[in-house]
Amino acid sequence: MGKSAVILLSGGLDSATVLAIANEQEYDCHALSFSYGQRHFSEIESSKLVASHLGVAEHVISEIDLSAWGGSALTGDIAVPKDGEGGGIPVTYVPARNTIFLSHALGFAEAIGSRDIFIGVNSVDYSGYPDCRGEFIESFQAMANLATKAGVEGDPFTIHAPLLEMTKVEIIQLGLSIGVDYSMTQSCYDPNGDGSPCGACDACRLRDAAFSSIGSM
Amino acid sequence: MGKSAVILLSGGLDSATVLAIANEQEYDCHALSFSYGQRHFSEIESSKLVASHLGVAEHVISEIDLSAWGGSALTGDIAVPKDGEGGGIPVTYVPARNTIFLSHALGFAEAIGSRDIFIGVNSVDYSGYPDCRGEFIESFQAMANLATKAGVEGDPFTIHAPLLEMTKVEIIQLGLSIGVDYSMTQSCYDPNGDGSPCGACDACRLRDAAFSSIGSM
Repeated sequence: MGKSAVILLSGGLDSATVLAIANEQEYDCHALSFSYGQRHFSEIESSKLVASHLGVAEHVISEIDLSAWGGSALTGDIAVPKDGEGGGIPVTYVPARNTIFLSHALGFAEAIGSRDIFIGVNSVDYSGYPDCRGEFIESFQAMANLATKAGVEGDPFTIHAPLLEMTKVEIIQLGLSIGVDYSMTQSCYDPNGDGSPCGACDACRLRDAAFSSIGSM
Repeated sequence: MGKSAVILLSGGLDSATVLAIANEQEYDCHALSFSYGQRHFSEIESSKLVASHLGVAEHVISEIDLSAWGGSALTGDIAVPKDGEGGGIPVTYVPARNTIFLSHALGFAEAIGSRDIFIGVNSVDYSGYPDCRGEFIESFQAMANLATKAGVEGDPFTIHAPLLEMTKVEIIQLGLSIGVDYSMTQSCYDPNGDGSPCGACDACRLRDAAFSSIGSM
């Protein structure tokens, strides 16, 4: 049996690419997705399609209730903006979301004997989220190695964020070269009733602009 | 309205004392408990009694499934030891538990505008758990202030661990002086079918020894 990794898999473009990267690096990939009261439940369906297409050792879908305390456009109590990116941190920011996701991934990884966690954060195209920055990832890794039995016993965890410094165009080009089928992925923050993307939220704008750019190269 | 705090409340002796301390410090206390597939479900009932007795602004019980991946005597797949403490990290260690709990508390706190999180970790009587040490708490706090909107905008979070350097006897004496009714608390890792403590696990031994010591003072 090879080395194993836990991959945070949202069903979006970035995490699908990360799963393909971890597969390329010959990890046995344990995908972890969350059902967290998000508006866009169809992303769970996308994560299942992506996991099945790219191949995983297992796919765990963990239910956690972040909507219990609200505070974000993505958990239901604030409207998703449709008029382009503003300055500062977007209202689609979910308090402590990546911290919570990485914490669960850390517990999962330690329980299965894995020391490698992959997350598809990206600070270039979307610098507004504090928990998508390299300094956050480094700080989480340091904390994780003080928090855990494995960490304190000298068998540390590594948080891999291979997309951190890539543009959306670079991410898509890499993914296409290693077998990602982006038609299975879902990026929209506020899909229509039939699951189709709204085409107007920040996530749709970034995705559409990247594909347009690639199409015209 | 006063300042608010999120209190991690397990239903055990330590966290009940912490809630009483936060009340003494005039925080509006938002208690957060977890139902996480633990063997000792009765601790949720204890947490409700404690919250009601000491008084809270609200009590949120969040369901998270840590048993999905096992790895601890407390989530069901390893026997709870009954023959006293051994060396090293106990098998009752739950991978990344306090990291996961604090991460949820962080999201909750940011969503309600609180910057203060209280946790009843204690490194003196029970130094075997890596996530009960001061260096873990400090590292989590530093990470939290890189992870969150509030943190990066200069309105940082504080993780309060008021019991960190106290002995079990000191904790109980403090709690008794500020109104904690320890008969409502529950510490046992493996209660009997009727919810009564086993009297033999590490948590029972520590608790019973402390109460015996106080009784003979």
